[in-house]
Parts: sequence; C-alpha cells; structure tokens
Amino acid sequence: MKITAESVYADVARIREAAPLVHNITNYVVMNTTANALLALGASPVMAHAEEEVEEMTGIAGALVINIGTLSRLWVAAMFRAVRRAGELEIPLILDPVGAGATSYRTRTCRDLIEYAPPAIIRGNASEIMALTGQGTQTKGVDSADPSAAALEAARRLNEETGGAVCVSGEVDYIVDGEGVIRIENGHPMMGKVTGLGCTATALCGAFAAVNRSFQEATAGAMAVMGIAGEIAAEHAEGPGSLQVAFLDALFCFSEEDLKGRLRIGVGS
Amino acid sequence: MKITAESVYADVARIREAAPLVHNITNYVVMNTTANALLALGASPVMAHAEEEVEEMTGIAGALVINIGTLSRLWVAAMFRAVRRAGELEIPLILDPVGAGATSYRTRTCRDLIEYAPPAIIRGNASEIMALTGQGTQTKGVDSADPSAAALEAARRLNEETGGAVCVSGEVDYIVDGEGVIRIENGHPMMGKVTGLGCTATALCGAFAAVNRSFQEATAGAMAVMGIAGEIAAEHAEGPGSLQVAFLDALFCFSEEDLKGRLRIGVGS
Amino acid sequence: MKITAESVYADVARIREAAPLVHNITNYVVMNTTANALLALGASPVMAHAEEEVEEMTGIAGALVINIGTLSRLWVAAMFRAVRRAGELEIPLILDPVGAGATSYRTRTCRDLIEYAPPAIIRGNASEIMALTGQGTQTKGVDSADPSAAALEAARRLNEETGGAVCVSGEVDYIVDGEGVIRIENGHPMMGKVTGLGCTATALCGAFAAVNRSFQEATAGAMAVMGIAGEIAAEHAEGPGSLQVAFLDALFCFSEEDLKGRLRIGVGS
Repeated sequence: MKITAESVYADVARIREAAPLVHNITNYVVMNTTANALLALGASPVMAHAEEEVEEMTGIAGALVINIGTLSRLWVAAMFRAVRRAGELEIPLILDPVGAGATSYRTRTCRDLIEYAPPAIIRGNASEIMALTGQGTQTKGVDSADPSAAALEAARRLNEETGGAVCVSGEVDYIVDGEGVIRIENGHPMMGKVTGLGCTATALCGAFAAVNRSFQEATAGAMAVMGIAGEIAAEHAEGPGSLQVAFLDALFCFSEEDLKGRLRIGVGS
Repeated sequence: MKITAESVYADVARIREAAPLVHNITNYVVMNTTANALLALGASPVMAHAEEEVEEMTGIAGALVINIGTLSRLWVAAMFRAVRRAGELEIPLILDPVGAGATSYRTRTCRDLIEYAPPAIIRGNASEIMALTGQGTQTKGVDSADPSAAALEAARRLNEETGGAVCVSGEVDYIVDGEGVIRIENGHPMMGKVTGLGCTATALCGAFAAVNRSFQEATAGAMAVMGIAGEIAAEHAEGPGSLQVAFLDALFCFSEEDLKGRLRIGVGS
Repeated sequence: MKITAESVYADVARIREAAPLVHNITNYVVMNTTANALLALGASPVMAHAEEEVEEMTGIAGALVINIGTLSRLWVAAMFRAVRRAGELEIPLILDPVGAGATSYRTRTCRDLIEYAPPAIIRGNASEIMALTGQGTQTKGVDSADPSAAALEAARRLNEETGGAVCVSGEVDYIVDGEGVIRIENGHPMMGKVTGLGCTATALCGAFAAVNRSFQEATAGAMAVMGIAGEIAAEHAEGPGSLQVAFLDALFCFSEEDLKGRLRIGVGS
C-alpha cells in the first residue's frame, strides 16, 4: 500500500514549503473558515469570483476549488471561465457539489461543470455524489442494508466519466479511482456540528493536489489530515465552537507523529 | 402561564430530534455564525439565495428566515419568490429587519415584504421595529422616560397588521402577539459586542417555529435559549471572541437544567 | 515625537466613548471578523454595498472603509458612489488594495478609485502598495538588499499623489505622510496565519480616523493596537484558531497599560 503516514506527511511538508496558491470560488458561508484552514496548514488561499479576473487568478494558482454552496448566475459564469482556464493550464480542478440533489439548479450546474471540464477530484457526501449520477430520487426509500454501496457505485461511475478521484465522505471516507478504493477512517462525530468542515476538506484537497498529481493520494491525504485534526480538536473541545478553534490549531501544529499515531487507512470498500 | 422551562425544553428536544431544515436568505456577515448556531442547537441550516432555486429550497424547509442585513437588488427579488412559496406551503416566515430606519432602502424593502407576505415572526431591536411602523424619525429626540414604550406600541401595531408574533429585543426581550406581551430577561451585556447575535436569535426563531406553530411560544423559547446560552458563555469568556466560541458550545450542550435554573420570564410590559 | 502610548490610548478612549459608525464595503471573507474587531474595540460597524443605499449609509458614518478583496462589477459601482459621497461630506476614506498586482482588475480598480477620490489612508502590504504605483512587475526579481525600500518609495509617491497617509504593513509597519515616516514594530508572526488580519487593520484605521483627523496618527494608532493585541493574543494561543479568539478578547480588554508596556514606535525608514 503506497499511502502511509510518511507519504501523507511528505505532502504536508511540501505544502508548508511551497505554500501553493489555492484559488477558491466558493460559498459565502465557509469562505472565512476554509481560508483559515488553508493558511493554518501552510497553503495560500485566495478567493476571487469576478468574471473580470478569475482567469487571471486561476492562471497563477496551483489548484482551483469550485464549491457551489451559495450559487447564483454570475458566479456560475465565472466558474466556467475559471475551469476552462484551469484545463488549458493543467491546473487541478476540485469540485464540491454542495447540496446537489436538493435543488435542480445545483444538480444541473454540477453536471454542466463536470461535462465541460472533468474535475481531478470530486468530494461530496453520499447523497450529493449519487445526485451527480442521477440516482438521487431512485435511491431514496430503497431499503439497502448498506446505503454506501449505492454511493460507491455512483463514485465509480463518476470516476469512469471524469478519470479523476471521487471521494464519498462520511463516517468513513471512500476515495475511488481507477486503481480501486481507499478508505480513511479518521474523524469525530462532532465535526458534523461545525458548518463548512466538508467544504474545508475539499479546500484541503486543493492544497494537496497542488503538490501531488496522484489525485487519489492527494485526496486520501487531505481526508486523513482533516479527520486527524478533527480527532485532536475533539479531545480539547467542549462543543462545536471550541472544536472549530482547536481544529485550526491542530492543522497549524500538525506533525508526522499525529499521522503515525492516528492514521486509519484501508483498501477496498 | 404556559411558557415554562419544561415547555421550552420540549421544543429544544423536538428540534434535536427532527433537525428541521431552516432556509436562510441572510446577510454575508452572519451566514457562518448563524449556520453554526442552528447546527449546534440541532437544526439543519441551509443558505440559498439564487432566484433559480429559492422556491425549491423553501419548499423542502421547515421555516424560512429572511434577514436584510446586506441587501441588494437580486437578493430582494429572491426574497419575494421565497416568501411567496413559504406562504403557499404555510411554512413559517421569520423576518429580521436589520438596519431598518438606517436607510430608506432597508425600511422600504421590509415594508414591501411585510405587506406582500405577513411574517409569522418579526424580531428586531427597538429602533428597527419602530422604523417598520414609520416611527423612526418621530421618536428620535423625544424624551421618554421609557423608550421601550414607543417600541412596544410599534410592535403591537405590527402584530395587528401581520397577525404574527413581534419581538423587540434588547436588555429585556418583549414578545408581542394578540394574547399580550411576554418578557424574557435572560442574556448578558457582552453579547452586544459579538456581531450577529441578533441575527442568530432570529435564525433560532426559525428552528423553534419549525417545531411549534404557536409563534409567540416559539419566539419566547428562542430568545430564552439565546439569552441563557449567552449567560453560560459569559461565565467562561474573557471577551467577545471567547464568548462567541463558548456560546456555540453552550447551545450544543444545552440542557433542561440550564433552563430550569436560569429562565427569567414574565408577562406584560 | 507626538505619537505616544498616551496619545494612542486617548484615541482608543474616544472610539469607546463615541462608538463611531464605520461603513465598510469589504470582502466576503473578512466581513464577520472585521465587524467583530470593530465591535470589540468599541466602534459600530456596518456593512452595506447596494447602490440603492450606500450613499445614505456613508452619509451617517464617521468613516468609509473600501476593501477590494472579493470585487465584482456591482460592488465597484457602489464603491464609487460611496467614495463620492464621503468626499462631499469630508468623511475619511480608507482603502485596502487587497491583491492589487495579482490581477489587472484589482490594480485598475484601485487606481481608478484613488484618482476619483484620494483616500485619507491607504494600507496594504509591500507588493500591493508597489502595484498601485505601477512597480509590481519591475521590482520582481530585482535583487535588493532591502525590499522595503522600493515599497517605501511607492508609499511616498502615493502620499504625494493623494495627500493622505500610506501604510506599508509587514513585520514592521511603515506609515508615510508628508511629515515623514513612522515605524510600528509591534505584532507577532502567527498573525499572518489568520485570514483577514490585514483587512482588520484597515477597518481599525477607519475607527481611528473617525476620531482623529491627523491620519498618520490615526493609522499609527490602529497599527499599534493591532500589533499589541496580536502579541497579547499570541501569548495565549496554541495556533491561529485560538489566536483569532484571543485577539478579539485583547481588543475588548485593551488598556493604556498594554500600550505603555508594549508600544514599539520609531521615526524614519
């Protein structure tokens, strides 16, 4: 197995050394927290969404993160400009389909983006990933002993379509690519009570992708660091307020020992 | 008196069990903090403002919260679409008239919204509530022994107009409806030094209204939980930074004992 | 030397007494944190960006802060309306040229704003200040023993053009006006790992300018309070998450003793 505490930490060290610029076109709710997480880990975040400048900004970035959490028409237009530029320059594109399936506008925008420019990494929860392959309504109400099976199948289809890594995040994070499935089993339940930690995971995928062009490794590394920082934070937290604070501190102080002592990784679904 | 620690806690328990979706069309400043407060209490926040999707999002929500803190034309258009949909589906509408009276655009937008779709709950400070009944300029400079008298009179008029509950928040929170006035006397002065706690109170009104269709009870419950969580937080805080963190922790850990030991409620103005 | 711990604290006391309204047209990333910093220090923040209301809002403010961190067309239009109104009413205008030099849209917008309405205070880092005088590309790659020399020269040129104070912030903050250069040497390296503390410094310049029309003094005071609050916070912080929290607490608790014991100020470059 090639993903180890050492290999993930090597990516963290590269991020800290290179401080790659991660261009985010993301939602209003999480801009501050994702910028802080990228800074705490060692990357350089920038948020820019105007059609007048997105191509220029993407052009100097090491990765482009698109997050559709608070969409509107002008932002979508800017997203298309940015992803085209990223494609031209072979800058990794990371997509977070926040709320895909909840409204048709979100589902359709994600589908249009994916067809226009296949993302290097897509990260979402099970219902979002399923919505991207049109399975949103069909799977609802189906009694499945293992709801993640349908999501993994959707992730496989998306991987076949895009050629990129697809992460279904949840209690266990599954990262699917053509080579197979990697499981990251780190994290803490209280993380679900802090808004934007999923979006933060996606932003960190951008930092990892900027320094590691094996996108399954990059995604696994980002999810492992997220989960471990969340575990460390939960040990110091009395609730989601202090968890968020301690999480940023944990990213800043993140060490190879944190990875060696805590990484829970597996192969296969 | 029907509002008690037990009745308020019953609503908290219902929120935690049902995790109602609260659709917020709110201002940029507080999106993150209100989403975190809703999550910490047990509700499910969503922020969406595009005309393309607001009706669909409102349609799956348990309450709609409209907050005009950072208005602009496209957002106002989306607000009208969302409130119409809420009206059609009898989804409770909660309005926060942030800065009404400060500019005519804010006052006029609130008036237009209220006349278009009467809110189940309006929550604002005294000057905002007075601005909604055209008393903004008249009351300035009037030497009144009790400035809250004019605000309460404005709240009564708004209640007559809308049929909904109207909350004038401040050191004491007054909740007016056709049945009379309820006072909540919880809270801490340092809360005024954290941006967006008023907006957070309004968002929590949305969570309570989603599980309790007596809107005066829902509002009183939300204001009581806000005030008590603020008191608990202030005991652990050295300033507004740590107050905000401890406030979210207190919402997350909120117990029936917190209510029994601290609720200060009264009837009449 | 006229700027002393006593003179800076006198401005802090004036801010706390007058609670001046600071109108911010700023970026999405930092709205919450700059509002909280202004509140913690004692000022009254308001964010408003709609063309329909910015002139009215600026008209009741004590200072106008323009920050171009997440520009778009409609926001730029509103900025021009607001700065014109500020000029008419002699309300101090403070400009933060976030990312000037990174894209031509940012550089051009800043230049247009400066030529349309000369700011009382401009605060940026060295590369931003240099970009405003067209030195962005020329200085890159030049081997200078002292990179700040070029930035200081750019600040002097901007001061000649605008007549206002120009702050080049960094490990040492230089505040340039026609009278000469003041250095503030407070601060902590970890502050660079919290998003928006530069923007917060600019917002605090607005609060100081609202109570002190000597703009070099106002800027020096704001930068000193920023740096000292950051030093105090760093003593209590384990990373950038807790630094941000402790920073707001330090602003709220800020005392004359903090200034007397810590202020590091000098004259000349």
